[in-house]
Amino acid sequence: MAREYPADSVGLVTPKKIHISEPLTLACGRVLNGYDLVYETYGEINENKTNAVLICHALSGNHHAAGYHGNNPEEKPGWWDTCIGPGKAIDTNRFFVVAPNNLGGCHGSTGPNTINPDTGKHWGPDFPQLRFRDWVESQRQLADALGIHRWAAVIGGSLGGMQAMRWALEYPDRLGHAVVIASAMSLTPQNIAFNELARQAITSDANYCGGRYLDEGKSPETGLSLARMIAHITYLSDSAFEQRFGRQLRAGTFERGQETELQFEVESYLHYKGKQFADQFDANSYLLITRMLDVYDLAREYNDDPVEAFSHALCKFFVVSFSTDWRFPPERSREINRALIAAGKDTSYLDVETDKGHDAFLLPIERYTSAFKAYMSNVAGEISNAD
Amino acid sequence: MAREYPADSVGLVTPKKIHISEPLTLACGRVLNGYDLVYETYGEINENKTNAVLICHALSGNHHAAGYHGNNPEEKPGWWDTCIGPGKAIDTNRFFVVAPNNLGGCHGSTGPNTINPDTGKHWGPDFPQLRFRDWVESQRQLADALGIHRWAAVIGGSLGGMQAMRWALEYPDRLGHAVVIASAMSLTPQNIAFNELARQAITSDANYCGGRYLDEGKSPETGLSLARMIAHITYLSDSAFEQRFGRQLRAGTFERGQETELQFEVESYLHYKGKQFADQFDANSYLLITRMLDVYDLAREYNDDPVEAFSHALCKFFVVSFSTDWRFPPERSREINRALIAAGKDTSYLDVETDKGHDAFLLPIERYTSAFKAYMSNVAGEISNAD
Repeated sequence: MAREYPADSVGLVTPKKIHISEPLTLACGRVLNGYDLVYETYGEINENKTNAVLICHALSGNHHAAGYHGNNPEEKPGWWDTCIGPGKAIDTNRFFVVAPNNLGGCHGSTGPNTINPDTGKHWGPDFPQLRFRDWVESQRQLADALGIHRWAAVIGGSLGGMQAMRWALEYPDRLGHAVVIASAMSLTPQNIAFNELARQAITSDANYCGGRYLDEGKSPETGLSLARMIAHITYLSDSAFEQRFGRQLRAGTFERGQETELQFEVESYLHYKGKQFADQFDANSYLLITRMLDVYDLAREYNDDPVEAFSHALCKFFVVSFSTDWRFPPERSREINRALIAAGKDTSYLDVETDKGHDAFLLPIERYTSAFKAYMSNVAGEISNAD
Repeated sequence: MAREYPADSVGLVTPKKIHISEPLTLACGRVLNGYDLVYETYGEINENKTNAVLICHALSGNHHAAGYHGNNPEEKPGWWDTCIGPGKAIDTNRFFVVAPNNLGGCHGSTGPNTINPDTGKHWGPDFPQLRFRDWVESQRQLADALGIHRWAAVIGGSLGGMQAMRWALEYPDRLGHAVVIASAMSLTPQNIAFNELARQAITSDANYCGGRYLDEGKSPETGLSLARMIAHITYLSDSAFEQRFGRQLRAGTFERGQETELQFEVESYLHYKGKQFADQFDANSYLLITRMLDVYDLAREYNDDPVEAFSHALCKFFVVSFSTDWRFPPERSREINRALIAAGKDTSYLDVETDKGHDAFLLPIERYTSAFKAYMSNVAGEISNAD
């Protein structure tokens, strides 16, 4: 018997895979002679193909943004199911949603864990260094393949928001809106430091094997798990940790008069999250993408001037931050918004009061989802008017 | 030719070692049948032995709090040389300063890297679990051995401040003042999480050998280095990182058209700090002490009520915090101060505006050192009057 999915869910979805045979010249100078992109779509494309939106996933995300892959009642929906579906912020009754797995990722798109056709072995550490513009370029090729000339909106949170901004500068006439959530125009040295800890945890794992662990039949899962634990601390606010775990023990006792193997609930949670991540993510992808994040600097080639950078954009912007996000604090979003205003662009900025930290962009927070829905409803209205 | 030391330095100092033969019953129930404490002293004790102050070091500190061990002009002074010396906040013209290396540490006091007399091997992971009260008890035995019945002040920053508070509750009549700097009454779950990352980094190092690395002739230096890098991020504020390193590169280039081995200045700095620490600290001590920090909860045995806890104190308190400290934020110091006031205690609280983060307690920040000096001058005045 088929499972009944929630009424506001896109329901059962099947990932698609496309092979792009057009060569992709990367920012580093190397050329990919063809590559695969895995993606999902939700909703129906309209006749003029003007209702497509592109979802850019974050560091640990993938193409499975909404709905379900099977009938198992235990299965969790895609990572942004709170915001994508019939009647939701990104309303699949109105939009055709395209959610690819990024190039260099590890969920089916060409990346370090796929086979390098030149060697017959896994790409591993030989996978080319990428920049965000390479993602944009691959997504542009995907758009061309799907016959989509212009996205109604390019949308992303965190690293996904950085992609949306890069889209706005690289192909100004190919998007109507950029939705930039919990993001920043560049990483701070503290952000970079956390990324470097994660990389160090991975590469110092004895099973990392210089990056060739897949060919060696090994897995640097301990290092990758630690890397994720490090990152995960930055996704939650101090107050979120406090409310969720406090100083509760999972094992052991505070009693005196004995020695005890203590474990706090927060430790147990982090270990669980780390292990879960290590089971489903590729260490080389993690190294690659964290370095892409470090290097990203929206305004670098525009004289380090965000206003000059955004002067090249033609789309409208919706910028969202969360009050307790300390990975990409509200101030980083305000910088984006200020630069957009100074560049004379059409921008709306919302700071959402919440105790959930950076992860808030994934959560069903009423103030956030209702404002997001209102904004996207206007986007949909523009399409209808243009049709 | 002897080196000339700065005029406000205590100059050349020589560590002392004392063997305490009185058995020490630990909070965990085990008994240490004698142990060594290494310590330094600066200044002269007065006739009535009323001018002694106890310095409690922080996680990475030791007995070498001030002055120099040799004549090498490159040598850096002790870790709190900014605050200890003739005419400084802790004025060695007025105070007799006692700075021990904590029990369980790794700089000469009995700890995991010393020999267990029962086995003839390093204690390693068999070293007893300690609590802060065990440190207080060992320091009480040291005081007895030195003929010091009452400390004019017990002083510490960070973990050292936590010791000072424990002293105030364990031996209320044996200290006149507790100086509690950049500290907290317990760790938050986020603090615990960072500690657990550090422990995980150490224990997953292949050279950790279940803690018996010294007997095996190995060193988990990569893991210990990573542990320190993790902690170090929490010692500096985001703005301190920004000002000090920005997004400057140490190696490589942002230029397109090439692949490059990038290193940011902040990464280079963290690796240097990690390596430096791993060369001088013992991994088992790090595991032991971070767990002691996690378990510490000033008010646990006082019905979880800080006011009830502090009602047992007899000393006066000086509480200091730093505005950008996010490891032990000002709010944690305000909690201490509020509880002291509610308990009717004599307390002074100062929040120092600075961009230096937690590490500020080690730095020559004028507002901080001048207030500290003024407070300690009053302490010294009380002694003179009492003599």
